[in-house]
Amino acid sequence: MTGASSVPVSSGPTTSGPTITRATVTPILIGDPPLLNTQGVHQPYTPRMIVELETDAGVTGVGETYGDTDYLTIAERLAVAVVGQPLSCLNRLGTLVGGDSSAPESTRLDVGGLRGVRTSTKLTASVVSAFEVAALDALGRTTGLPVHALLGGKVRDRVEYSGYLFYRWAEHPVPDAPADDWGDALDPDGVVAQAQRFADRYGFTSFKLKGGVFPPEEEIAAINALRAAFPEAPLRLDPNGAWSVATGISVANELANVVEYLEDPTLGVTGMSEVYRKTGVPLATNMCVTTFAEVPAAFAADAVQVVLSDHHFWGGLVATRELAALCRTFGVGLSMHSNTHLGISLAAMTHVASTVPDLLYACDTHRPWQTEDVITEPHTFSGGCVDVSDAPGLGIELDRDNLARFHERWKAGDVRNRDDVSAMRVARPEWTQPAMPRW
Amino acid sequence: MTGASSVPVSSGPTTSGPTITRATVTPILIGDPPLLNTQGVHQPYTPRMIVELETDAGVTGVGETYGDTDYLTIAERLAVAVVGQPLSCLNRLGTLVGGDSSAPESTRLDVGGLRGVRTSTKLTASVVSAFEVAALDALGRTTGLPVHALLGGKVRDRVEYSGYLFYRWAEHPVPDAPADDWGDALDPDGVVAQAQRFADRYGFTSFKLKGGVFPPEEEIAAINALRAAFPEAPLRLDPNGAWSVATGISVANELANVVEYLEDPTLGVTGMSEVYRKTGVPLATNMCVTTFAEVPAAFAADAVQVVLSDHHFWGGLVATRELAALCRTFGVGLSMHSNTHLGISLAAMTHVASTVPDLLYACDTHRPWQTEDVITEPHTFSGGCVDVSDAPGLGIELDRDNLARFHERWKAGDVRNRDDVSAMRVARPEWTQPAMPRW
Repeated sequence: MTGASSVPVSSGPTTSGPTITRATVTPILIGDPPLLNTQGVHQPYTPRMIVELETDAGVTGVGETYGDTDYLTIAERLAVAVVGQPLSCLNRLGTLVGGDSSAPESTRLDVGGLRGVRTSTKLTASVVSAFEVAALDALGRTTGLPVHALLGGKVRDRVEYSGYLFYRWAEHPVPDAPADDWGDALDPDGVVAQAQRFADRYGFTSFKLKGGVFPPEEEIAAINALRAAFPEAPLRLDPNGAWSVATGISVANELANVVEYLEDPTLGVTGMSEVYRKTGVPLATNMCVTTFAEVPAAFAADAVQVVLSDHHFWGGLVATRELAALCRTFGVGLSMHSNTHLGISLAAMTHVASTVPDLLYACDTHRPWQTEDVITEPHTFSGGCVDVSDAPGLGIELDRDNLARFHERWKAGDVRNRDDVSAMRVARPEWTQPAMPRW
Repeated sequence: MTGASSVPVSSGPTTSGPTITRATVTPILIGDPPLLNTQGVHQPYTPRMIVELETDAGVTGVGETYGDTDYLTIAERLAVAVVGQPLSCLNRLGTLVGGDSSAPESTRLDVGGLRGVRTSTKLTASVVSAFEVAALDALGRTTGLPVHALLGGKVRDRVEYSGYLFYRWAEHPVPDAPADDWGDALDPDGVVAQAQRFADRYGFTSFKLKGGVFPPEEEIAAINALRAAFPEAPLRLDPNGAWSVATGISVANELANVVEYLEDPTLGVTGMSEVYRKTGVPLATNMCVTTFAEVPAAFAADAVQVVLSDHHFWGGLVATRELAALCRTFGVGLSMHSNTHLGISLAAMTHVASTVPDLLYACDTHRPWQTEDVITEPHTFSGGCVDVSDAPGLGIELDRDNLARFHERWKAGDVRNRDDVSAMRVARPEWTQPAMPRW
């Protein structure tokens, strides 16, 4: 494992409370099903990183975030910098990273084209989030308080998630890939069957379909089929910006009375704003607004009606609550975005979601698609909800055997970045990163 | 004392951690010098309220806020509602107040015309803030952590305050009023002498003059005299909205290269925006923007360049950090406002200010004008700064003898509200609340 062991205490402000004596960053690969999106298909294995912070009292807290190389580079630097710092150094984590980021500020799309802008500030925030969650977990374990109590206390005992539906293949087009028994879903019937299984197994009562895979009319048909099968369920469609403004307007008009909101029908503030202005259909985003820097222009243009927070992107749980305050102040809705993640992040998402009064939409989560986890007792979904833990910290325990196994897989393998385009090319050699808009 | 003793445990969400078993609200009157402002003069005694929250572990935390009758009414309701709640119920304090507020939503100016809009939401926030601070103090004492650590940790070890200069009389125009030896300050020489004494005694290196008392040319002369006496000191002038837009523009132009910022030169978003647009002089406010609801319009119009947060107005320390995030996101500056207050609030202000990286201006505080306090070891200012305590909680101890004495004073007296207009009428029977703008 990549580890930063004890170094001399730094010269940060004096403080009482526990001190961080060890920070460990462990890159892992976890199995992922062949879920389709507009960029391509999920790889058989996807990188994540697990962060552990240990204090001078022998308490360890854990966090989780993206595991691509650029994130790991920053995390390894931060792992050195936090040793000797007080556990309550959350407000200085961004500063402690220090130096020049390996990734220059730019506005090009992130790995896979699915995470919005890619700036060094955002990469840093995504790494900081894992350290912040680990510090909160350790602080909670130290004080006997659940993480939600450290965030001002939960306002609800359960957090609702929506069933995250994907067009998918039955299996990866390579040998020895992780497998499951969900079968394929490539048309409206397949999507409805998947939703039904989700509803039966987990009790989800709202659904999001990852779109941008097939021409819009096919995806409209899938949403209408879901509406017929689940007359009361809030429904969402997310093509990850694959449509032109004209197409976005057309789809929005067709689904105006069917969807709860459309997610990223098109790319950019100007286009999103136009789709909303001409249709009145609420638009959610995890691409148009993924950083604080993007908020003013998007809010001024009324480009987004629901921000899908992602505590990784935004810099942690406190930052997520700050985003919630921003949205509340400007009358913009708030829900929660998800990329492939494990139980540490699900715990973190659940804790922070439990503390935000105006988080009124069911949150997204990929977690039901993962058959592996790094915690000893993976969460269960019941009635579409996850119970908020009142145990100290995040309320989870790291499964060190699994962590070691997934890290060995990372060391043995050559997957270092999420790359849905290359994964698709395995099945379709002619595939290249799609030019946007696709339709 | 007005006290709410134990009632059955409420049906809020389950949680671990300490439970609030007793909440006590104590109104007090504290001595105040005859400081002048555009509305009139400070009364000899001004109301404050002290909130104590006790937990099932026998730990007590303290908070402080405005003590006017409307605030007390809400506080007494909240004192009943919090008993039986977890200490970590910060996110639900606003909800726990419940019911209809005694003060209808309106936009009329607050008591004394100095605190911006007066809405029931804002009155509630001002009360909630004292309970939130008390809960954080108790949580800190319970866990051994300073309040700043519960807010993500300090980013500085000292918080800078500015010397808050007032035109003033030597003594109150009534018998048996509290007295001090500062003498009067009614012209530029008097203001400079006061600043010199502040600098010598407390080390302040920036100064704010409360204006709106004399015609603008006299106050400009006072600022210029301060500039001559303190060539390097940041200077601020605050007429509490007493000027017309034209006067504000004129003063701003005259002081463009002299002041760090002008505070509330005129009332309202439109006027503030015009003064800034036509002069480029940064404008600060604790009147134009004092609630989250006022932020969008003011930011859109570029009406304020520095928001003066006041953790009482804004609903507490976490809300102050949310305001900081808002300001950071929109590129608006942040500093801190003060009304007459004691050491509990100074401790709270210092803790939260220590955690906000971009709080780059010296904060305001009235505290040096108070000769009384309700804490056993009142803070000292050195180099214009207050050290950030690393002791558990706020790092202060309630002086119960003083608290009882000031409460007896409240019971014996008839002052129930801050009323600078009536206080001025004692000396000038013809005085009425000034129509704005005065100049």
